[in-house]
Amino acid sequence: MQVIIEKDYEQMSRTAMQLLLGLMYQPKKVHLAITAGSTPKRLYELLSAEMKAKTPLENVTYYNFDEIPIGNEKWGVTISNLKQMYFEPAGIKEEQVHALDMFNYTTHDKVIAERGGLDAMLLGIGADGHFCGNLPGTTKFGDETVRVSIKTRPDIREILISEVGGDERKVSDYYVTMGPKSVMQAKHIILFANGKKKAEIIKRAFFGPVTEDVPASVLQLHPNLTLLLDKEAASEL
Amino acid sequence: MQVIIEKDYEQMSRTAMQLLLGLMYQPKKVHLAITAGSTPKRLYELLSAEMKAKTPLENVTYYNFDEIPIGNEKWGVTISNLKQMYFEPAGIKEEQVHALDMFNYTTHDKVIAERGGLDAMLLGIGADGHFCGNLPGTTKFGDETVRVSIKTRPDIREILISEVGGDERKVSDYYVTMGPKSVMQAKHIILFANGKKKAEIIKRAFFGPVTEDVPASVLQLHPNLTLLLDKEAASEL
Amino acid sequence: MQVIIEKDYEQMSRTAMQLLLGLMYQPKKVHLAITAGSTPKRLYELLSAEMKAKTPLENVTYYNFDEIPIGNEKWGVTISNLKQMYFEPAGIKEEQVHALDMFNYTTHDKVIAERGGLDAMLLGIGADGHFCGNLPGTTKFGDETVRVSIKTRPDIREILISEVGGDERKVSDYYVTMGPKSVMQAKHIILFANGKKKAEIIKRAFFGPVTEDVPASVLQLHPNLTLLLDKEAASEL
Amino acid sequence: MQVIIEKDYEQMSRTAMQLLLGLMYQPKKVHLAITAGSTPKRLYELLSAEMKAKTPLENVTYYNFDEIPIGNEKWGVTISNLKQMYFEPAGIKEEQVHALDMFNYTTHDKVIAERGGLDAMLLGIGADGHFCGNLPGTTKFGDETVRVSIKTRPDIREILISEVGGDERKVSDYYVTMGPKSVMQAKHIILFANGKKKAEIIKRAFFGPVTEDVPASVLQLHPNLTLLLDKEAASEL
Repeated sequence: MQVIIEKDYEQMSRTAMQLLLGLMYQPKKVHLAITAGSTPKRLYELLSAEMKAKTPLENVTYYNFDEIPIGNEKWGVTISNLKQMYFEPAGIKEEQVHALDMFNYTTHDKVIAERGGLDAMLLGIGADGHFCGNLPGTTKFGDETVRVSIKTRPDIREILISEVGGDERKVSDYYVTMGPKSVMQAKHIILFANGKKKAEIIKRAFFGPVTEDVPASVLQLHPNLTLLLDKEAASEL
Repeated sequence: MQVIIEKDYEQMSRTAMQLLLGLMYQPKKVHLAITAGSTPKRLYELLSAEMKAKTPLENVTYYNFDEIPIGNEKWGVTISNLKQMYFEPAGIKEEQVHALDMFNYTTHDKVIAERGGLDAMLLGIGADGHFCGNLPGTTKFGDETVRVSIKTRPDIREILISEVGGDERKVSDYYVTMGPKSVMQAKHIILFANGKKKAEIIKRAFFGPVTEDVPASVLQLHPNLTLLLDKEAASEL
Repeated sequence: MQVIIEKDYEQMSRTAMQLLLGLMYQPKKVHLAITAGSTPKRLYELLSAEMKAKTPLENVTYYNFDEIPIGNEKWGVTISNLKQMYFEPAGIKEEQVHALDMFNYTTHDKVIAERGGLDAMLLGIGADGHFCGNLPGTTKFGDETVRVSIKTRPDIREILISEVGGDERKVSDYYVTMGPKSVMQAKHIILFANGKKKAEIIKRAFFGPVTEDVPASVLQLHPNLTLLLDKEAASEL
Repeated sequence: MQVIIEKDYEQMSRTAMQLLLGLMYQPKKVHLAITAGSTPKRLYELLSAEMKAKTPLENVTYYNFDEIPIGNEKWGVTISNLKQMYFEPAGIKEEQVHALDMFNYTTHDKVIAERGGLDAMLLGIGADGHFCGNLPGTTKFGDETVRVSIKTRPDIREILISEVGGDERKVSDYYVTMGPKSVMQAKHIILFANGKKKAEIIKRAFFGPVTEDVPASVLQLHPNLTLLLDKEAASEL
């Protein structure tokens, strides 16, 4: 595990951008699974500005690693978020995006394996220790890409309602996510976190026991893990 | 996970030899941790004959991954076994062997990391799901190289007595082993097994849940795992 | 450059087999270009016996790197030779062989690049310093896969007649070969040679100046070159 | 060969920075040989600003690849230039710099090989096709790190006088450089160039014949070459 601690959110975001660009500039097809959410907000602003200024990096294919359907809409919560934050402002072409969804999740791992595997995954972490859609109690370490039912945990339905904007009519009975076993197959895992609210879980997940109660703790076991933090997220280490 | 199934113990042993030799012929220093025990008996016979016939591969450094002290003797059970089965018949030089023991186990992981990590580990598996000295109930997934006390489990002392040849005066209060977290840092893990007596644990460990009750199940999560079996060990798959 | 010197042709052939098998056991699709001719005779005997005894390695795709047409026959000299010496006795499936020929040579480099490049090339060397079909005076260091006309050098026609079995009616006006630039793109180059008759050219090609007069001398510049010799071929070093 | 064409010098410099930072963020010791001169001026300004803002990347060791002595001064032209442009403003520690000089050039290649080789070299190109100190007529493709005498070419002494600031008393009878063979051993070569004055040589060196008259033409043969240009330098392609 490589630990990088930057002084603040801005610099953490710049370093994340440099890590990703370094991977993208390999002279081959590059497969990257990237996170939605709030942590990458500044990263995607920086990266989009950079991408607009430079010759397109068409050797890169992007993947989401979880998805929540929104009613009958074509795009779910995660891809919609990535489109808005990154793919559209950066000018990423539609054929460069491989969207995981309800219909293709059973073949997701196989498709990735046939393409030679993910070169890297950029992950965030929740205060409860979740990564991707691996919330405590929803998946097991041995799970590959799976469908998680709202029956798995009593509060999942509430979470999904909130994710689809509060409209109960748009909520589904399940979401999909790459499970811990699928994520562990990536060649490089970059997990980043910022702010005091993440300090405790960073300590528990990466310097405490490996347990399904703290799903992200499994990432400790990956042979090529980069943990990228700002000072606040690292303040309990 | 790559699964290779050979017709019998002889061919499994030949393939293991080829896998190891392929790693050894990289034009760089190569670091290999290899297993003692009964599974590799034929492998080491084949490999020793080959090594005697060819120009020495002095770029290879060998490591043991667990050790049981024998009274006050210089060499413990594992290294003694490896010396007899492989290092001596193959003409491996003493400076090519880095022996893990009671005195250096606290720095074992650091030494390996500074040398760039293990290029590969060759592991066996016990009928109880143990690998290295990670017996159920002795170590946790998050453990690095550790000392395991006979107090950890009631029957460990009996096991150690048996390992040192039945002589109670030579038994120690502990043994050392690379823990699951240390093993998972290797670049490539090769686990091999043969015979009907391993068929059930192979199924449980590699096609069942990831749980500390079956320590080897953690290896499912490694991004570069080769599972090498004879037909009998694969008969439950 | 890594130099391996084995005691005789038999051991050189065994080591070549181990190098190739080591590459084949990578858990991914593996692309290998291999040589025809007399040097690999024993290698292919050993490798075929091994392949028959083990579970097929279907992740491997084989390529020839030069070809001489035989009249209007479907298969040229090189592929026919490889079929007879290796593909047929080893049970390699037809779909695992990508045959370079007169009709596809213009796209050969592109096809290989799209598949991620050659993992390794196994090459021999001629007493005149040629490798593949790069005879002195026929290609330039900057050439990719090309067609070489019999007009390039006065004696090429005689050579081709001899290669097609002495029958003038079967000889073509050209042959095809991967040029030095294409060969240099491979990730690993293994050049092997045995016997006193190769001793002088080994010295000139790998320990003398890099010059188009000794085409194989360009291989000195490759960052991942293994030179595998028996004692006789190494006797001038 | 991967060709990247950016719109102007500023963006070419940014992309060069991203390529280098991507390499530096590998979780291992990273060995980089970098160029002095005018092309990297903006790159080093950008990189120095970035380095000052972030947690030091102490896993990186820097190398120069040629050197011109200045009288009896400790530091030669190249290292002095790198210190001023990059090492000092970026806060690179002295122990991170391995200076090639008159006294250690005979062991330079061996030291690098023992450290596992250069992860990358960042090179510029001269209008005469030179790279590092490989001016036409001074070195051969097969040269490793060598000392080049002023007697090699009539005008070398004038060039060296100019390099040491015009003071004849400070000029030496030789300079040192990594030769083409040493440079080709690097795992990744990045050559960058900007401006119309480089357009013709870029075309000749990378899209013309491989010849010692245009030393940089040898780099075409490297299996992992990135050619990074601004639009002007690419205008003849």
